Amino acid sequence: MKTMDDLEVGDKASFTKTISESDVYLFAGITGDLNPAHTDAEYMKTTPFQQRVAHGVLTMGLMSAVVGMKLPGPGTILLSTSARFTAPVFFGDTITAEVEVAEKNVEKNRLKLNAVCTNQDGKTVITGEFIVSPYVKK
Amino acid sequence: MKTMDDLEVGDKASFTKTISESDVYLFAGITGDLNPAHTDAEYMKTTPFQQRVAHGVLTMGLMSAVVGMKLPGPGTILLSTSARFTAPVFFGDTITAEVEVAEKNVEKNRLKLNAVCTNQDGKTVITGEFIVSPYVKK
Amino acid sequence: MKTMDDLEVGDKASFTKTISESDVYLFAGITGDLNPAHTDAEYMKTTPFQQRVAHGVLTMGLMSAVVGMKLPGPGTILLSTSARFTAPVFFGDTITAEVEVAEKNVEKNRLKLNAVCTNQDGKTVITGEFIVSPYVKK
Amino acid sequence: MKTMDDLEVGDKASFTKTISESDVYLFAGITGDLNPAHTDAEYMKTTPFQQRVAHGVLTMGLMSAVVGMKLPGPGTILLSTSARFTAPVFFGDTITAEVEVAEKNVEKNRLKLNAVCTNQDGKTVITGEFIVSPYVKK
Repeated sequence: MKTMDDLEVGDKASFTKTISESDVYLFAGITGDLNPAHTDAEYMKTTPFQQRVAHGVLTMGLMSAVVGMKLPGPGTILLSTSARFTAPVFFGDTITAEVEVAEKNVEKNRLKLNAVCTNQDGKTVITGEFIVSPYVKK
Repeated sequence: MKTMDDLEVGDKASFTKTISESDVYLFAGITGDLNPAHTDAEYMKTTPFQQRVAHGVLTMGLMSAVVGMKLPGPGTILLSTSARFTAPVFFGDTITAEVEVAEKNVEKNRLKLNAVCTNQDGKTVITGEFIVSPYVKK
Repeated sequence: MKTMDDLEVGDKASFTKTISESDVYLFAGITGDLNPAHTDAEYMKTTPFQQRVAHGVLTMGLMSAVVGMKLPGPGTILLSTSARFTAPVFFGDTITAEVEVAEKNVEKNRLKLNAVCTNQDGKTVITGEFIVSPYVKK
Repeated sequence: MKTMDDLEVGDKASFTKTISESDVYLFAGITGDLNPAHTDAEYMKTTPFQQRVAHGVLTMGLMSAVVGMKLPGPGTILLSTSARFTAPVFFGDTITAEVEVAEKNVEKNRLKLNAVCTNQDGKTVITGEFIVSPYVKK
């Protein structure tokens, strides 16, 4: 488990996943968000998107997966997050979430992490940040 | 579908759900966040939490469900969000997500929504906000 | 929560969802109905349907969702239901479940609700009814 | 695959399953029925039920699983169904769905099947019936 000493500004980690229809449908059930944007293909044909889109918060979950699994990884406590949704994620899109250490506050044991999600065409779909406390050895 | 004209500062809506183990496990599978905090009960016994906790972003999903389903509801476009995680959510906790219209910018067709999640004991687990564009009649 | 006083003959509500392969597969797992009609694409090529179909009872679930979520909504007790299956539902079909108050028995606190499911082409796939007791204020 | 010739009035088949929280939560997501009766444990403590209950239509799914898997089984076409909900199904209840051939109409290739679901205490939770067309050899 990485502690503050193991982490430097500029460290990066990423995770890539193709977002499936079943991902979106399960997320809809977990959260109760069965908004037609996510689950009504016919309605979406009448919109500029032309098709169903993934939930923005689902895609944020890929960024938080990098934080929880890799950078800093297990033992990290999430304090806050923010995100801007800059482009839609469609079913079948392959999303890469990349997280980078932006600032290090050793005294408070806090990191600021920048995060970005891009799709298979390199288009940015979310930019965000996380404030976290890395694991502290007991 | 609610347009800007149907929405006033102070409007509120909420959604309540008991968070199950299966919610957390499915969310782990969808996002790839199988951090031991969420899926390793033995490891969690060695931490101050004593038990597995739900993903912060999963609980944010309940807030975004209120935005997508009720206030403003279908047709809304999510522009950005932020959240502070103030207390853990345990399996079996019953979380109420409440969303309130905080600011209305008619010119830009934008709303600022304040959001808060509380557990069954009234304890705040997340405070957040969303910037959204409500549905526009064509 | 709507009580008998809030409900009139002719009141309507609906819910629309595109039925996904994952919906059908999860429903198969929940109920144990892994009949080849739902989960064996090769077998279905040898039938007049040519492809897998959703479970009839799954589609009934969309009607009961309208009853439980909207009309009358939370607090309702389901007493009985009936349904006629008039056309198949294929994976990817977008089904609209519409429910309408048909009869009101104030003395017994009972409603008869008519329900119909149609697909994206306007074809009726199920007609049914529900007998329910709406919420009673304590 | 059983045809009309293989089926006699009085033939029976059954299927038993313990209904899990995850069964109910997935069914809620599939159908969009996140009614508090199924997903809000705190609210349910304030009702005579004291706890969350399974969706009535989910339990009907066990009956229709017997029809689709065993009696008559693969190749059967479901024409109609009806059900009376006589007692609640709680998470962890073990439900047995039993189906019996009640009437045989060889001319129309139709069967009337009686169905009943009972819980682990032998209490009847649903009584119902199905009208089906068994498989016809080509």
